[in-house]
Amino acid sequence: MALRKARRAGEVEPRTGTNYPDPFRARVQGRLKRALGDLFGLDQFGVNLTELPPGAFSALRHWHSHEDELVCVLEGEVTLITDAGEEVLRPGDCVGFKAGAADGHHLTNRSKGPVRYLEIGSRRFDVDAVVYPDDDLAVQPDGSGRHRMVRKDGTPY
Amino acid sequence: MALRKARRAGEVEPRTGTNYPDPFRARVQGRLKRALGDLFGLDQFGVNLTELPPGAFSALRHWHSHEDELVCVLEGEVTLITDAGEEVLRPGDCVGFKAGAADGHHLTNRSKGPVRYLEIGSRRFDVDAVVYPDDDLAVQPDGSGRHRMVRKDGTPY
Repeated sequence: MALRKARRAGEVEPRTGTNYPDPFRARVQGRLKRALGDLFGLDQFGVNLTELPPGAFSALRHWHSHEDELVCVLEGEVTLITDAGEEVLRPGDCVGFKAGAADGHHLTNRSKGPVRYLEIGSRRFDVDAVVYPDDDLAVQPDGSGRHRMVRKDGTPY
Repeated sequence: MALRKARRAGEVEPRTGTNYPDPFRARVQGRLKRALGDLFGLDQFGVNLTELPPGAFSALRHWHSHEDELVCVLEGEVTLITDAGEEVLRPGDCVGFKAGAADGHHLTNRSKGPVRYLEIGSRRFDVDAVVYPDDDLAVQPDGSGRHRMVRKDGTPY
């Protein structure tokens, strides 16, 4: 049998951590991300198989200056929150967020079961800023190629 | 109720055409692509919900010089063909193809039922070349921002 190139997405070791400083970390407690694109050495975009337990958020509500994003729901029911309000997404639903569109979004699992979705985002760490309309948090590109999180006045956490 | 931002992926109007010249067009006969990223104005990467009927190929076997690609299977069984040989992918399997890795790939549906998968590819039309190891076909960037297909000696079809 030939060397197998494909991988079972659900069996990839998940990442449980977050870059958020306290007190924001608790909002994504229990979130699991399986970094599928990284498995294959991809660096132009990331693809995560993400799992949210009941009560968890995907992220703080945010928008990106330079990175397109798209979400496709695979399992469960998840609530999308944007400036337009709330809507429930079910398996087979997808939603995209154009870079630079000033409308923060996140997902939250208000159901009693797990939610799984694929999330895709381009990687432009060198120029991307992230805006968090509801929280005293900001990401500004600093040339390091990393997403360094600061307060809105620029001071570190 | 708030304006609905999400879309049912399976209800998006599919694209049935191909840019392949004859005689290659027949190999992707019946292939349906639902361009999810385009729905939301994304232009850094494309995300297609693609459906292959029995007997159809995803594409001619190829690799990209500058565009990363990733496939996640949602329904059915599909055969991946690369230089390493063949393997069957099932729902939950994913495989990625790094830009510049000189190993052509494509998928073919040898089953009796439909196959559905998500395919993600970055968009670098300005610099991307596509290599087709098995066929007298090539794509070279010509500055037009389009994928113009020619013979390997550069003559048009």
